[in-house]
Amino acid sequence: MINEKFLLRNKTAEIIYEKIKNLPIIDYHCHLNPKEIAENKAFKNITELWLGGDHYKWRLMRANGIEERYITGDADDYEKFLKWAETIEEAVGNPIYHWTNLELKRYFGYNKVLGVKNAKEIWEYCNKIIQSGEFNVKSIFKQFNVKSLCTTDDPADDLKYHKQIAADSEFDTKVYPTFRPSNVFNVNSNYSEYIKKLEKSADMKIDSYKALVNALYSRMDYFNQNLCRLSDHSFDPFVYEDYNEREVEDIFSDILNGEFDLTKINKFKTALFYDLNKKYFDLDWSVQIHMNCIRNANAAMFEKLGPDTGYDCIGDTPYADSLVKTFDSLCKINKLPRTIVYSLNPNDFDMLTTIIACYQGGGIKGKMQLGSAWWFNDHIKGMENQMISLANNGLLSRFIGMLTDSRSFLSYPRHEYFRRILANLLGTQFEDGLFADDIELLIKIAENISYYNADNYFNFV
Amino acid sequence: MINEKFLLRNKTAEIIYEKIKNLPIIDYHCHLNPKEIAENKAFKNITELWLGGDHYKWRLMRANGIEERYITGDADDYEKFLKWAETIEEAVGNPIYHWTNLELKRYFGYNKVLGVKNAKEIWEYCNKIIQSGEFNVKSIFKQFNVKSLCTTDDPADDLKYHKQIAADSEFDTKVYPTFRPSNVFNVNSNYSEYIKKLEKSADMKIDSYKALVNALYSRMDYFNQNLCRLSDHSFDPFVYEDYNEREVEDIFSDILNGEFDLTKINKFKTALFYDLNKKYFDLDWSVQIHMNCIRNANAAMFEKLGPDTGYDCIGDTPYADSLVKTFDSLCKINKLPRTIVYSLNPNDFDMLTTIIACYQGGGIKGKMQLGSAWWFNDHIKGMENQMISLANNGLLSRFIGMLTDSRSFLSYPRHEYFRRILANLLGTQFEDGLFADDIELLIKIAENISYYNADNYFNFV
Amino acid sequence: MINEKFLLRNKTAEIIYEKIKNLPIIDYHCHLNPKEIAENKAFKNITELWLGGDHYKWRLMRANGIEERYITGDADDYEKFLKWAETIEEAVGNPIYHWTNLELKRYFGYNKVLGVKNAKEIWEYCNKIIQSGEFNVKSIFKQFNVKSLCTTDDPADDLKYHKQIAADSEFDTKVYPTFRPSNVFNVNSNYSEYIKKLEKSADMKIDSYKALVNALYSRMDYFNQNLCRLSDHSFDPFVYEDYNEREVEDIFSDILNGEFDLTKINKFKTALFYDLNKKYFDLDWSVQIHMNCIRNANAAMFEKLGPDTGYDCIGDTPYADSLVKTFDSLCKINKLPRTIVYSLNPNDFDMLTTIIACYQGGGIKGKMQLGSAWWFNDHIKGMENQMISLANNGLLSRFIGMLTDSRSFLSYPRHEYFRRILANLLGTQFEDGLFADDIELLIKIAENISYYNADNYFNFV
Repeated sequence: MINEKFLLRNKTAEIIYEKIKNLPIIDYHCHLNPKEIAENKAFKNITELWLGGDHYKWRLMRANGIEERYITGDADDYEKFLKWAETIEEAVGNPIYHWTNLELKRYFGYNKVLGVKNAKEIWEYCNKIIQSGEFNVKSIFKQFNVKSLCTTDDPADDLKYHKQIAADSEFDTKVYPTFRPSNVFNVNSNYSEYIKKLEKSADMKIDSYKALVNALYSRMDYFNQNLCRLSDHSFDPFVYEDYNEREVEDIFSDILNGEFDLTKINKFKTALFYDLNKKYFDLDWSVQIHMNCIRNANAAMFEKLGPDTGYDCIGDTPYADSLVKTFDSLCKINKLPRTIVYSLNPNDFDMLTTIIACYQGGGIKGKMQLGSAWWFNDHIKGMENQMISLANNGLLSRFIGMLTDSRSFLSYPRHEYFRRILANLLGTQFEDGLFADDIELLIKIAENISYYNADNYFNFV
Repeated sequence: MINEKFLLRNKTAEIIYEKIKNLPIIDYHCHLNPKEIAENKAFKNITELWLGGDHYKWRLMRANGIEERYITGDADDYEKFLKWAETIEEAVGNPIYHWTNLELKRYFGYNKVLGVKNAKEIWEYCNKIIQSGEFNVKSIFKQFNVKSLCTTDDPADDLKYHKQIAADSEFDTKVYPTFRPSNVFNVNSNYSEYIKKLEKSADMKIDSYKALVNALYSRMDYFNQNLCRLSDHSFDPFVYEDYNEREVEDIFSDILNGEFDLTKINKFKTALFYDLNKKYFDLDWSVQIHMNCIRNANAAMFEKLGPDTGYDCIGDTPYADSLVKTFDSLCKINKLPRTIVYSLNPNDFDMLTTIIACYQGGGIKGKMQLGSAWWFNDHIKGMENQMISLANNGLLSRFIGMLTDSRSFLSYPRHEYFRRILANLLGTQFEDGLFADDIELLIKIAENISYYNADNYFNFV
Repeated sequence: MINEKFLLRNKTAEIIYEKIKNLPIIDYHCHLNPKEIAENKAFKNITELWLGGDHYKWRLMRANGIEERYITGDADDYEKFLKWAETIEEAVGNPIYHWTNLELKRYFGYNKVLGVKNAKEIWEYCNKIIQSGEFNVKSIFKQFNVKSLCTTDDPADDLKYHKQIAADSEFDTKVYPTFRPSNVFNVNSNYSEYIKKLEKSADMKIDSYKALVNALYSRMDYFNQNLCRLSDHSFDPFVYEDYNEREVEDIFSDILNGEFDLTKINKFKTALFYDLNKKYFDLDWSVQIHMNCIRNANAAMFEKLGPDTGYDCIGDTPYADSLVKTFDSLCKINKLPRTIVYSLNPNDFDMLTTIIACYQGGGIKGKMQLGSAWWFNDHIKGMENQMISLANNGLLSRFIGMLTDSRSFLSYPRHEYFRRILANLLGTQFEDGLFADDIELLIKIAENISYYNADNYFNFV
């Protein structure tokens, strides 16, 4: 299945892919664990490496009727692996089917497709390589030419692993932190506790909204010193609620006192996002906004397994007006940072492309970005739709391209998957007579999307 | 037009279709009239058979500017047939164009395409067959290998025709009732009257919400004895409103007294759907939920013609949060039945696929199903999108496949239409190098979707 | 790139296109300036002609990081042209890329693709033609066989340029006004001022809601005498709010007094749209409704540049219920005019197709129309989706086809673009075996959509 022409359906696509396949990877958004990187983690077996923590795969297994004990439970690793083989074998059309077999090929040099029949063979074959002593984080980064990656980090984090990695001369890969203040925005019963943690890390008392902003600004300076150039927000749903500064102080008091009123919390979020953006702009950071996700939709399973275990889904709350008001308010004070918008609902792609077009400019190529096809959109159709949407109402050629958004060290072939789909899309434009007879120009565009645009967009040092 | 390769655009598709074309049909959701089945209805002419009650066709005729008297009025049957020929002749790209010509071919062995020129020829040709005495419900079921079908029935129904059919040894086709309590959920000015009817059928007094639930449970037991294994709900729009048990009692009193308050009615619906699901789960039934339809959008025509006459349309009310809360509440008490979700708005497919994935499991393959492309989505693009959505974020291989949702005995070729589209989609995956080089496995998947998955999913006896 | 086969991907498509390419153009919705038409405007250079006022292009330049001074600022025309060449060169997949090169070819006979390398050559080449004295509005209309076009005009307009054009025997093109009462619906701080203008044009006092309606009716009679047969509304978002006549009088008083309450304004809009439709019906006009646009999303730029400068975007407000209530209320009194619905959000196409199907009939072919792919949808995918949506749930063969919606005299090749895409879509249906083996019938359908349907639909004299 996976040969040189995989996903490339015409000659021009092949020519283009040949030129981009070896470019370095900038994985500017992922959820890898900095500790595991710093410690150059090695792995026990293919089940740990593949199925430990990968909720994409868990969802498929559940859809296949596999019992939970073979997914997150106490079954042994080989049993779990067999259940996975049984599930993936028939997952026709699913991107994880392709990823799985790409990973087998690229990490292990295994050329057949995973199924029930050869599951045992693969179990033994892969484990031998994994347990060889030469298979670890550093070897993976080297093999896939990972130039840089951004982890996702809480404002209160001390970034000690990032420092350790930066100090390790054996790492060619730059590992940058990302400032992700989810815990500051997600008002819940543990909120006061989190604020205490934040106070400690900022070494500041947080007894007012103003103090909160100052503490966060202080943490941003700290992150900035540690080479962070990127923040990340998730809004579920995205909100904009008019507020005035005085009431936000009162609302923050209420929140610390455990009073949770939805409209008030939305005012608080609106104010805080606005205030953080001002500093993002001043630091010349980029901002990521993730939207239209419903998280932890199954409370019974949340209680058993916690978050990020396969119980999230696409939301459908309208938010165009809120997003417009947010960007508009920042433009009024000339403080809108470079921004990347992602929606989990693919219906939003065209809308988002036209919204961001209202805030482009200021001498920055592609200042406002339609984020790559995220999570449940990370498949052939999703990526094609995201790129066609951008091409139709913006400049695909300025797109900063792919990221893994992954918790797994086995995800780098997703960049190959993306690059093949990109090459195919551009090649098809060419062969359908929809672009100039200038293959060099098309290759340049493909190279920019695969690597150079991201390299220029972020102010990484 | 309709030859062996119809809709099959590659060799693998042809191979796959060859293997599934003769599998039995399980039509698990339709609106056939049990009386007409029981009485083995014969037909007057092609106009009665084709145009009587088929609001899909009526809509097209209206779009073509045909006056109502040729549609639902007093024009004679031949005149109506000519107006239909005039309309369908130019309906390029419309699924009814394909169905019409498939039906001509499969039911009557007529090989040309209906148009104005040959309308008279077809009128005479088909009527001769229809009036031959050998063309009736039983002959149709036999010809199309209909193993089983589910009608749609009110809780107050006595199911006498189902009993009559079950007792008729000449029927090879099993005809199951479906429990569809629309009249219990649709609070309107005739509500009290309906409750009286329900009281009578359940032989119970319904003077409280609790009594209502008990009466419905009693009817469910009766339906269950008559081999019903499936319920059907339509929510326009889907709602979830927090409630407590006590207020629901008061609300039900208000409703019986003719007080209709939207928020209160939504609480009532939320409570009732929850309570019915508990019993569905205990009976091991499956539940169908139909969403995002606006019914009877033209009051002037509703007054003249009543419901189901071509005046319904797609709605756009967001409901992800409500659906999540509903499923979540049932998971908390471990009473979520097997559920099939259908949306009339195709924008919802991706969202629904990811929502149901949060509630899969419990050892049932494909417990939560994305319903097949329903009504206004029942065309090539709609079916492909529904299946691609499922493939991208779930397991297409566990899909229980097609249904007709039809009021017409001429609709069985829609299963052929679906199977051809399915074969083409799987064949394309294969030929594009997106699936293992294992044609047997692909055929098995196609067979499962066409027949075996549905056969396993429902607990029909 | 642009040869005879441009966008035509099969032989049948080529045959069909050959038959429709020379049909006249009816451009029933555009924003050309009647004064410029009446005065037979000539142009200074390619920058004025191409980039002056074209906010589609401005958006692309901003996305490319071009500074505003080269877009709407004081850079000289040649500099601006170079910046445009730099931007469009890499705009792979964007419709403006195709339009640009089609325009170079059709207006100027220039056969290469615009890029940085040949920008100077093109600048000189085109300017020579533009400045030749034979390049003006009349020559353009003649070259493109523009039979008729509809401008967009305020109710208070005196239509003097339309009279002047009508009196000019050198115009073969009919130029009709369109009644667009945006200023009556857009309640804002300049509202009273606008009402005064309207009073003057109608020569009537407007001191009540009733008087407003009468003044507008009077203007409609005036427009009708000047051959207007079409109105145009934009709702951002579309609303329907129940009202009674008495409260609307009070609300109108409040509005004149500068009191702006959203719910009240929505009642006012609902009432006014209803009342205008009654007169549209009586005059046998057609109505256009444009929906789901967010206008002037960037206040900072609005202050500098005003409206229509590239700061609008797609909205996502649900409105199916409101649209249904509106049409339903007009059907009840049998006063629903022929109506064309456009949404800027392509997610709405399927919904709209099924909504309008509920109001078809009355002996008019395609009375209710799904408007052609509008603005941000005016690209290959958008047009294909709009037509496929219509084909799936209505009659594509009754579609009244393309319009430019443009402010530029260089836009007529967009009709060619559309006709090629249409020919390709119909040709593909034929070659895929999805339509009868009757090429003549298919050509007739293509001709109708390209020209004859629009010619029959509007009551132009």
